[in-house]
Amino acid sequence: MFRRLLSLEEARDAIQSQIKTGALGVEEIPLLEAADRVLAEDIVAMLDIPPFDRSTVDGYAVRAEDTFGAEDNRPVTLKICGTVPIGELPSIRVLKNEAAEIVTGAPIAKGADAVVMVEHTERKLDCVHVFSAVAKHANVMKTGGDIRKGETVLKRERLLGSREIGVLAALGINKLKVYRIPRVAVLSTGPEITEPGKKLPPGKIYDINAYSLSTAVLESGGKPIYLGVFQDDLAELQTALKHALDSSDMVVTSGGVSVGPKDIIPKALISLRTARLILSGIAIKPGKPTTAAVVGDKLVFSLPGHPTSALLVFHLLVRPAIQMMAGRKPEEDTETEAIAAARMFSAKGRKTFVMVALKLDESHRILAKPVSGGDSGAITTLAKADGFVEIPENVQFIDAGEEVVVRLFGPKMWRP
Amino acid sequence: MFRRLLSLEEARDAIQSQIKTGALGVEEIPLLEAADRVLAEDIVAMLDIPPFDRSTVDGYAVRAEDTFGAEDNRPVTLKICGTVPIGELPSIRVLKNEAAEIVTGAPIAKGADAVVMVEHTERKLDCVHVFSAVAKHANVMKTGGDIRKGETVLKRERLLGSREIGVLAALGINKLKVYRIPRVAVLSTGPEITEPGKKLPPGKIYDINAYSLSTAVLESGGKPIYLGVFQDDLAELQTALKHALDSSDMVVTSGGVSVGPKDIIPKALISLRTARLILSGIAIKPGKPTTAAVVGDKLVFSLPGHPTSALLVFHLLVRPAIQMMAGRKPEEDTETEAIAAARMFSAKGRKTFVMVALKLDESHRILAKPVSGGDSGAITTLAKADGFVEIPENVQFIDAGEEVVVRLFGPKMWRP
Repeated sequence: MFRRLLSLEEARDAIQSQIKTGALGVEEIPLLEAADRVLAEDIVAMLDIPPFDRSTVDGYAVRAEDTFGAEDNRPVTLKICGTVPIGELPSIRVLKNEAAEIVTGAPIAKGADAVVMVEHTERKLDCVHVFSAVAKHANVMKTGGDIRKGETVLKRERLLGSREIGVLAALGINKLKVYRIPRVAVLSTGPEITEPGKKLPPGKIYDINAYSLSTAVLESGGKPIYLGVFQDDLAELQTALKHALDSSDMVVTSGGVSVGPKDIIPKALISLRTARLILSGIAIKPGKPTTAAVVGDKLVFSLPGHPTSALLVFHLLVRPAIQMMAGRKPEEDTETEAIAAARMFSAKGRKTFVMVALKLDESHRILAKPVSGGDSGAITTLAKADGFVEIPENVQFIDAGEEVVVRLFGPKMWRP
Repeated sequence: MFRRLLSLEEARDAIQSQIKTGALGVEEIPLLEAADRVLAEDIVAMLDIPPFDRSTVDGYAVRAEDTFGAEDNRPVTLKICGTVPIGELPSIRVLKNEAAEIVTGAPIAKGADAVVMVEHTERKLDCVHVFSAVAKHANVMKTGGDIRKGETVLKRERLLGSREIGVLAALGINKLKVYRIPRVAVLSTGPEITEPGKKLPPGKIYDINAYSLSTAVLESGGKPIYLGVFQDDLAELQTALKHALDSSDMVVTSGGVSVGPKDIIPKALISLRTARLILSGIAIKPGKPTTAAVVGDKLVFSLPGHPTSALLVFHLLVRPAIQMMAGRKPEEDTETEAIAAARMFSAKGRKTFVMVALKLDESHRILAKPVSGGDSGAITTLAKADGFVEIPENVQFIDAGEEVVVRLFGPKMWRP
């Protein structure tokens, strides 16, 4: 065990030095299932896009030189030699002073080197009047003009959304390699907690953390494995931890780490043969009694039992760890500036986080109002807080009316 | 068919007037699967939280009056009468000048009305020295002090994240009613397109839209049903549309709506018996040849074939429609201010959207650079654009150096 509490930054470094992106390996999945996954390979174009000289408009394929001099009041007249089929290579050839009907996306007819937009023409039986001259290659996208065969189109570690998946489809790719999703086992401990859905015995409360943290795992790009509630029994917890480690890539526990006589999770952890504590206590409030260990090559986090503290520490330390394992760039929190609606105190010598709810005042300034009950175990704090304000170690308090930066819990911008 | 093109706002109104939140019905799901779902019922607390007077710290349960006058240099000494068990109702009773050991979360012992924090005490065998007086109810959360039985805790239409799911768990709820997820059938049309993964015949290109739009459906809170690629054949399309309507709550097609001779989707649509066109063309660029119809009570969107146009119109019209059907508040786009890196032109009389990529210049200003190829069918535009700039109908161009507002494609903040 360490004597000195680590600072938040030291704790972060201690955790992140254990993580190697891609260490979980890669898997090949169908393109239609690749949304929100992280690419584990560079994507090199295996074909030119477009694969042929292609019209970008509806109109007439022509030899550009035949249209020279065409103007609104002095059209050039060309003979229509046919229609370019779409979806197949054209057999039709455009000769001098001829034009071939063509639609957007069709290959340019042989002999033609430009397309006149239909808006600049007037059809007359087997002829077309062209009212606007076109330059060579006008309205034609040349073979490979968009993507050249052999070009690297998307790089490893790119997060895949609708736009990237569209580009992969364009290249004909329907299977691709992505990083495996970290499986994160989540369990709660405490003799006073009962699983939701069961009858509540006297003196007990329902478990919150295994649910809120499982969801937070999902929101961080991991796959939660809900293991439920365990009693503060050393043997039972050892078994539970072993099972959790066998079935996951990371373990997150909560409870059993207070300053009371029941610091059982750290005990159960140390009792595992290969466990190595990497942090035991952080100089933050709330969140001080946080422990993390490495067992084999797997991280085990032991978070405070207080639901708001557990979720805050998850946000500060576990979420970036999951994101790194998943190959995601640990995103910065979304922040908003606000005015402190009340004085916020810090804890002596500890970086302090104050949960705040945001609202607009009459002059449309954003107010950050500390959420009451943040210390008392109130669970409604969870639902009321939009984010938190960080007070540095060396600052005693932030006064009402001061400007503060609020780090938002949600990934989205806050809107009134 | 309408003669006049609708404005974007008129098109939005025409679509949104067809949608009734919750019309798809509700389903009951387990709490662990409720992340990112929308609550379809008000949640009323069926129990007090906490369900008993509860200690919020580790320490000693006392009668507050027994601690009066206690100070750092003049402690009060109390006799320890036992330990309050956690997880069951205490049988122990604290009498005058007695204290009972207690941990965070344990029910207060009978007779006691406050808890002294362990940090303010010193244990001596069967006595405890108390160095700080406590007021009545200090460090005790009263029954119902957090949530009162009968209170409405979360309202219908609340989007469920880790914090809300924690609150629901606290209430013992492990099943809940959420709005059904809209199923959106997605299909592409065009004789020139082939499904990715297949061999590419000469003159053809791979389908993009069914993939990018399926992913965009997912990103909007819908469930995509990928139907693939169909030829521009009226009978085949009628069958495909009927099948799509039977298996989904909304249909999104792309292609087959250009100004060329192949406007087949609108034809296939009108041929369906109960179809009613609600818009046919919008005064925007790109995206003009967009059609929408109502068949029975289902919306059918027919988007342009150009991948970037299709995704833009999806973003402007289809995404908010899916969000409304799912019970989500159609979120505003995330926006960022930027400096135009080049002149951007508008199309005459049409609201124009210019795709832009963002980057920082040397003075850390955000530059919005128009992505080349936006008009030409280039698919790389998709992957390069971070968002788009809207140029109003009555503005000819935005000059390089002017401030612009960029609406971001992703839901997240853009970061360099």
